[in-house]
Amino acid sequence: MEIYASQVRKETNIPIFARDVERVLSVLFVSDDFWQIVRYSMVSLPAVASLIKLLEKEGWIKYEGEKIVLTEKGKREAELAGVHPYRRYICDRCNGKTVVIDAFKEVYEEFLKLQGNRPEALHRYDQGYVTPETTLARVAFADMRGDVRGREIIALGDDDLVGLALALTGLPKRVVVIDIDKRILDFESKIKEEKGLDMLELRRVDLREPLPEDLLGKFDVFFTDPEETLPGFKAFVYRGIATLKGPGCAGYVGITHVETSLSKWREIQKFIVEAGLAITDIINEFNEYVNWPYYRDMRAYSLNPVKSDPKDIWYVSALYRIETLDNFQRWNEPLAEDIYEDDESSTT
Amino acid sequence: MEIYASQVRKETNIPIFARDVERVLSVLFVSDDFWQIVRYSMVSLPAVASLIKLLEKEGWIKYEGEKIVLTEKGKREAELAGVHPYRRYICDRCNGKTVVIDAFKEVYEEFLKLQGNRPEALHRYDQGYVTPETTLARVAFADMRGDVRGREIIALGDDDLVGLALALTGLPKRVVVIDIDKRILDFESKIKEEKGLDMLELRRVDLREPLPEDLLGKFDVFFTDPEETLPGFKAFVYRGIATLKGPGCAGYVGITHVETSLSKWREIQKFIVEAGLAITDIINEFNEYVNWPYYRDMRAYSLNPVKSDPKDIWYVSALYRIETLDNFQRWNEPLAEDIYEDDESSTT
Repeated sequence: MEIYASQVRKETNIPIFARDVERVLSVLFVSDDFWQIVRYSMVSLPAVASLIKLLEKEGWIKYEGEKIVLTEKGKREAELAGVHPYRRYICDRCNGKTVVIDAFKEVYEEFLKLQGNRPEALHRYDQGYVTPETTLARVAFADMRGDVRGREIIALGDDDLVGLALALTGLPKRVVVIDIDKRILDFESKIKEEKGLDMLELRRVDLREPLPEDLLGKFDVFFTDPEETLPGFKAFVYRGIATLKGPGCAGYVGITHVETSLSKWREIQKFIVEAGLAITDIINEFNEYVNWPYYRDMRAYSLNPVKSDPKDIWYVSALYRIETLDNFQRWNEPLAEDIYEDDESSTT
Repeated sequence: MEIYASQVRKETNIPIFARDVERVLSVLFVSDDFWQIVRYSMVSLPAVASLIKLLEKEGWIKYEGEKIVLTEKGKREAELAGVHPYRRYICDRCNGKTVVIDAFKEVYEEFLKLQGNRPEALHRYDQGYVTPETTLARVAFADMRGDVRGREIIALGDDDLVGLALALTGLPKRVVVIDIDKRILDFESKIKEEKGLDMLELRRVDLREPLPEDLLGKFDVFFTDPEETLPGFKAFVYRGIATLKGPGCAGYVGITHVETSLSKWREIQKFIVEAGLAITDIINEFNEYVNWPYYRDMRAYSLNPVKSDPKDIWYVSALYRIETLDNFQRWNEPLAEDIYEDDESSTT
């Protein structure tokens, strides 16, 4: 397996190992769909695509229309190498999210109706939003952790509408949504007027620029789905941290395996602890994303060897909750680097 | 709140903040039981005990027999400070574990019977074992992550009998259990003979000493419930890491809030990433421990201001899954320091 891993490393510049090759093969035993193979293998998408092309050349798999199928040779070789079919025991009630949203049923139903008219995800801002169930599960999870009631909360980028959902609960003291996309601000602004959500504030901010002074050190909690390049992660998460009041404040951050190898996960974790925070939770697959309309323009689509369309949910991310300790670092510099693209990005 | 936090910091030497005082008060709204207050506040036990004594002096709470009750003054002050009653939305099917164990029903039932005769937890080795449901949930979770079938697995300390449960599934290639406690080795050895569990190896090892050479670099996966002092964490987890073969191998580690403040969580996370691993999962409350018989001899009991006995499960820990990358560090030195006690330890 290591020989394939090293070829993929060379071709993609993404640090994957023999174990990642096993992961992809393991899912190939149970799925022939490119997007599901990416999801369940938990391996960076360009590496999965590169590996599949390699395995096809080696005769381990073949393409049947849009299907990616293990050949008899592939099965034999995989079994010889000790690879077992992928198995899944995820809870069928909470979908692996650890919490249920029953207590927020009314807010959920209201949110479900309201979000029907939401602005569609834009490629330009690398948008892609989570399912309404995910949005409410975030609210429930955060409320269980004491991060909602009476809190001052900021959403850095809100195509997920978690800021709106929080305001609809009526529980926080203040919810500030900042976004670069005027459509989202207008959409939430209209609902704010209709529903009288006085606690909700909407502001147009470009996260590549330093945050306005009046947002620094003012919040108990932030939510963000960062760009997953390292500079992008900084732009979103470091600025999120800069908005927090002091020790014991929390950030909720989504990080994928689709665009972030475990080596980059480690870099991100290093950033977090070095900034003076602890990671309190990492729940894989917590965030499930609705398929977005611009997928045919993505690098991910051009990398997909069989050019299939995604059918079910395939893009998921882990929920990270991070918490400030004493002496955490506030960072608010302008960003010169490209926050949108690196070797692993494929859906931007 | 910060004034109370700083007094507790001074008295206990444990870094807690205003937010932790809020957490304890928040649970006091819904529970009068010392052990449940510790569990749900997720604050280090000696700090909780110290804070409760302080709040009692201030007239915020009073003791009624074994009950710790918020007074009218306490309620008023807490509400004024913006504290809300603790709320819980944990999934009622998987209990927040993310996975269900239905697929392992037969192994679970066999395990349930066999463990009836297990050796009782000993104070001397700081033992305390998880519920059978937890043991099987670990097996299911690890199997979903590809860490069971065909794998070579080591359990560093096995009072939880996870090594035995893994062997009972018949799925791993090899399971090595090392423990200092001859009773556990004898217990598992007897079952090994009865059931013909040839893959299971039992060896007496003191983790304070360097591991035998023939265990280094030989395993795909390790399991351990470390001592939670920093030297104790090293003794268990660093040695676990030293047993792993190469990149893409995994460790399963339980870490509590009972004995480990978030500041120490951060230190532990720093160790992990600096050793060249990534943290792939942190699932709080995954591990639920059966109450052990020696609790009246624990520091935790003497700290408990109302000297109540624990009734329900109260001692829980987060499941950490960590994974090796390239160039991770193998460390196998002897340990001079006290691995069992620091300012936060209370159940050792």
